[in-house]
Amino acid sequence: MPDSPTDPRPDAASTNWLERYHAALMMTIRVRMLDKPGTLAHVLEAIAGARSPLGDIKTVGATSRTKLRDIQVYCVDREHLSATLAAIETVPDAEVLHVTDEVLDIHRGGTIETVATVGLESIQDLRMVYTPGVASVCSLIESDPEAAWTYTAKGNKIAIATNGTAVLGLGDIGALAGLPVMEGKAAILAHYVGVSAEPMLIDEKDPEKIIDIIAACASGYGAIQLEDIGAPACFEIETTLQERLDVPVFHDDQHGTATVCIAGLINALKITGRTAGDCRAVVLGAGAAGIAIARFLVDFGLEDVVLCDSHGAITPDRADGMNPWKKKVAEVTNPKRVTGTLADVMVGRDLFIGVSRPNLVTKAMVASMATDSIVFALANPVSEISAEDARAAGAAVALDGRGMNNALAYPGIFRGTLDARARRITHAMKFAAATTLAEAADGGSLLPEMTDMAVHQRVAAAVRAAADAGT
Amino acid sequence: MPDSPTDPRPDAASTNWLERYHAALMMTIRVRMLDKPGTLAHVLEAIAGARSPLGDIKTVGATSRTKLRDIQVYCVDREHLSATLAAIETVPDAEVLHVTDEVLDIHRGGTIETVATVGLESIQDLRMVYTPGVASVCSLIESDPEAAWTYTAKGNKIAIATNGTAVLGLGDIGALAGLPVMEGKAAILAHYVGVSAEPMLIDEKDPEKIIDIIAACASGYGAIQLEDIGAPACFEIETTLQERLDVPVFHDDQHGTATVCIAGLINALKITGRTAGDCRAVVLGAGAAGIAIARFLVDFGLEDVVLCDSHGAITPDRADGMNPWKKKVAEVTNPKRVTGTLADVMVGRDLFIGVSRPNLVTKAMVASMATDSIVFALANPVSEISAEDARAAGAAVALDGRGMNNALAYPGIFRGTLDARARRITHAMKFAAATTLAEAADGGSLLPEMTDMAVHQRVAAAVRAAADAGT
Repeated sequence: MPDSPTDPRPDAASTNWLERYHAALMMTIRVRMLDKPGTLAHVLEAIAGARSPLGDIKTVGATSRTKLRDIQVYCVDREHLSATLAAIETVPDAEVLHVTDEVLDIHRGGTIETVATVGLESIQDLRMVYTPGVASVCSLIESDPEAAWTYTAKGNKIAIATNGTAVLGLGDIGALAGLPVMEGKAAILAHYVGVSAEPMLIDEKDPEKIIDIIAACASGYGAIQLEDIGAPACFEIETTLQERLDVPVFHDDQHGTATVCIAGLINALKITGRTAGDCRAVVLGAGAAGIAIARFLVDFGLEDVVLCDSHGAITPDRADGMNPWKKKVAEVTNPKRVTGTLADVMVGRDLFIGVSRPNLVTKAMVASMATDSIVFALANPVSEISAEDARAAGAAVALDGRGMNNALAYPGIFRGTLDARARRITHAMKFAAATTLAEAADGGSLLPEMTDMAVHQRVAAAVRAAADAGT
Repeated sequence: MPDSPTDPRPDAASTNWLERYHAALMMTIRVRMLDKPGTLAHVLEAIAGARSPLGDIKTVGATSRTKLRDIQVYCVDREHLSATLAAIETVPDAEVLHVTDEVLDIHRGGTIETVATVGLESIQDLRMVYTPGVASVCSLIESDPEAAWTYTAKGNKIAIATNGTAVLGLGDIGALAGLPVMEGKAAILAHYVGVSAEPMLIDEKDPEKIIDIIAACASGYGAIQLEDIGAPACFEIETTLQERLDVPVFHDDQHGTATVCIAGLINALKITGRTAGDCRAVVLGAGAAGIAIARFLVDFGLEDVVLCDSHGAITPDRADGMNPWKKKVAEVTNPKRVTGTLADVMVGRDLFIGVSRPNLVTKAMVASMATDSIVFALANPVSEISAEDARAAGAAVALDGRGMNNALAYPGIFRGTLDARARRITHAMKFAAATTLAEAADGGSLLPEMTDMAVHQRVAAAVRAAADAGT
C-alpha cells in the first residue's frame, strides 16, 4: 500500500491510533500459536508492522502445546486485512485459522425488530387487540384523528426516510444499501430513548416525487427524520414537506450535526475565553451540514461567518458552483462579502468547522488562524486535518470526526419532540438541545459521552420544555 | 333500541351469546354494592335484562358494609352501554362508580414497538452497529443487493400496506383510522411467528399512485401484505405490484380468507362425506374475499361454483353491477351460466360461503339446500345467518364469523415465505397452508385454535416446503 499523505492507515508514530482511526473493517483473527514465551508478542509485533490497530485479545482454547487466541484488529480495507494476515503468517510459531467479520455478524438479521407490546395468549386478548374489539378504536380515530397519537404507536414512532444518495462518506449507494445505517439510527433511538423508528427507503431521486411519497405515507408517524439525502435536494424536500405536514420534518444531517457543533462550540468558547460575538468563523463544505451549521452559527450570535466550498468563499453574487440554497445562506453570512480561497479566508479567523473532504486543511492554514484557534475538522471517514496536527499547528481546541459524534443530538431531540407532541422542531428546541449537551460534558470535554443514557434524557427534557414553552 | 331482525344485540333466548356476538365495545363497570345476599344477583339480572353478555367479575375492594366489583360486559355501542348502566342503577343497593374501556386501554400507546436487537452499551458497540463499522455492511449491499436479506432486517420484515378504504365492516375510514388494525396484525405476526411488520399507511385512492408509492418504498421489505384496500382497486394493485416487485405481494383479505375457508371446507367435506368434485357451491359477495374464495374453490377441484352479488348470480355477460374482475372470475366459475337471485341459486347446493352483509340468508334458503349442507356465513360484524339458525334449518356444518378466524393463515404463510426467501406466494403455498390448518384441527373442529403457537409453526413449515419445492 502506498504511504501517501492521504493513506488512511494509522501512522505508526501516532500515540492515539484509535482516536484518529476511521476503520471500515473490524475483524477478529483466530490464531493458533505455540505456547511458549514470546509467541504472542511476535504476533502482535507483526500486526503492528502491518499498521493494524489492536482491539481485545481473548484466549479461546488451549492444548498442552498450543493456545488459540482471538485477536481483534482494525483494517482500512480488504487489502489491508490481507497484508495483516500475511504479516502474522511470517511468525514461525503462529497460524491463522480463520477471520470473522464482527460487524457483519452484528448486522446479521438486522439491528432492529418489531415486537408486540400487548399480550396475545388468549382468544380474549385477540378479541381486544384485533377483531372485533379493535373496531371501536378505529371508529374513535375516524371521528377524532388526534386520538391516533394516544391509541396507536404514532405518538412514539418516527420514519427515517432516505433515498440513499448521500450515505456516510459512501455517496449515492441507493436506499437499500443505506438500510444498515437507518437501522443503526433506529436501534440507537430504541435503545437510548425508547422511540420506535422505521426506515422508509425511497427508490426515487426526483425531489417532488419524494415529497409526494413521504407526504402520502406520513400519517402513522409522529415525526419524519430525513437522512442521507444529498444536497441540494434535501433542502427542497425538507422545506416543502414541512409546509405540507403537521408533524415535524427534521433532516438530521443538517440540524443534528449543527446542534452537536454548537454544543461543542459553547464549551470551546469557554475554554478559549471568547464570546460568540467575538468569534470569527469559517465553515468548509456547503452541503447539508455546512449550510445548516453556518445558519446555526449566525443564529447563535456569531457576526462574521464565511461559508466556503471547493470554489472558495461564497458570496450571494458569486458565479461558479452556486445553487439557490448557497445563495440564500450567503445572504445571511459573509457580511463583508469576503472572496478568495479557503486558505485566504482562514487567515486570522478564530473558528474553523469542516464538513467537507479529507486532508483539505494544512498545518500552515491552521497556523495562519488567530491565536488559540478552534478547529472542528469533521469530514468522514478521514478529517480535513487530524486533531493532532491542528493542535500541533496552534489550535487551542481541536476535534476531528472521531471526537465528535454527530448522533449525540437526535435521540433526545426526537424524544422531547414526541413527548411534547410538537408539530415543528424549532430553533429554540435545537438550541435547548445544544446547550444541554454542552452542560452535560464534564472534565474539560467538549461533548458528553454518547453512551451516557442520562445525557439523552436531559436533552429530551430540555427539548420538551422548549416545545411546551412554544418557542 | 328497536328489536328488529337486524338488531345485533344477542337474543336473550340464545344459549351461546358470545359465540354469536360481535362486540364493538368491551367495557368494565365498577359497581359498589351493599354486601348482602342477592345484591350481585340483582345486578347481573339487570345486566341480562339489558342484553349485555357478561365477561369476568372481580372483587376489587371491600368495606364492612360494601363490596366493590369490576364487571366486564359486552355492548353493541354507546347507546347499549348507557342502557346497561341505567339498568344497573335501578338496583337499589348498587351504584356505578365508573366505566373503563378495556380495548382503548390495551391500544393506548399502540400494540407494537421497534426495539434494538443488538447491544449498544459501549462505544465499541456503537462503532459496529453505526459508524464507522456500518459502512462495510452498506458497501457489501451496494455491490450485492441480495446481501440485504442477510445483513438487514429485510429478510424478516414485511410491510402491511393499506389506504383504509375497506377496514373491517367499517368501510372507507381512511388509512390512519385503520392503523389499529394494521398494528393488531403486526402484533399477531410478532407474537406468533416472530415476523416484524410495519404498517404502511397510504393516503391515496388512485390505484396507479398507490402502486407507484408501494413500489418506490418496497426495497426494505421481504414481502408486501396488502390489507383493507377496497375492491376492485385491490385487484389491480395486487396484480400490477406483483409484476413490478421481486418480493411477494399478498392481499390478505383475498388469499388469507380464502385459505382459511378451504381449510374449513376440507374438514367439512370429511364430516359430510363429500369430495370436492361432488360439492356444488354458491359464494355470496363479489368483493376481494368472495372472488378469491371462488377462484380457490375452483382450483381446489369444485366443478360447480356460482358467485353471487347483490344483483344475483354472476355470468360473464351479465349487464348490471359488473367490473372487469367479476367478469374474469365469472369466466372460470358458473359453468352452467346460471342466472337468478341468491335464493334461486342456493336451491339444492351443498355449500354456501358468505362474505357479504348481515342477515342476507334466511332459514328457508338454507332449508332449500341439499341435505347435510355446509354453511360458512362470514359477514362481519353480523353474519348472513347465524350458525345456530343455519343448523336449525338443516345445515350439517355451520360456521359464522365468530367461528372462523380469518387471521389463522397469514402468520404461518409469511413466516414460511420469508424463511424460503420466496419471491411469490404461489397457489401451492396457499394450498399447503390450507391442508395443514385442516390437519391441525382436532376433536371434530373445522379449524384449529388461533392461539395455538404450534399451528402457526406447522403452517410455516408446510409453506416453506412448498416454496422450496418450487411449486
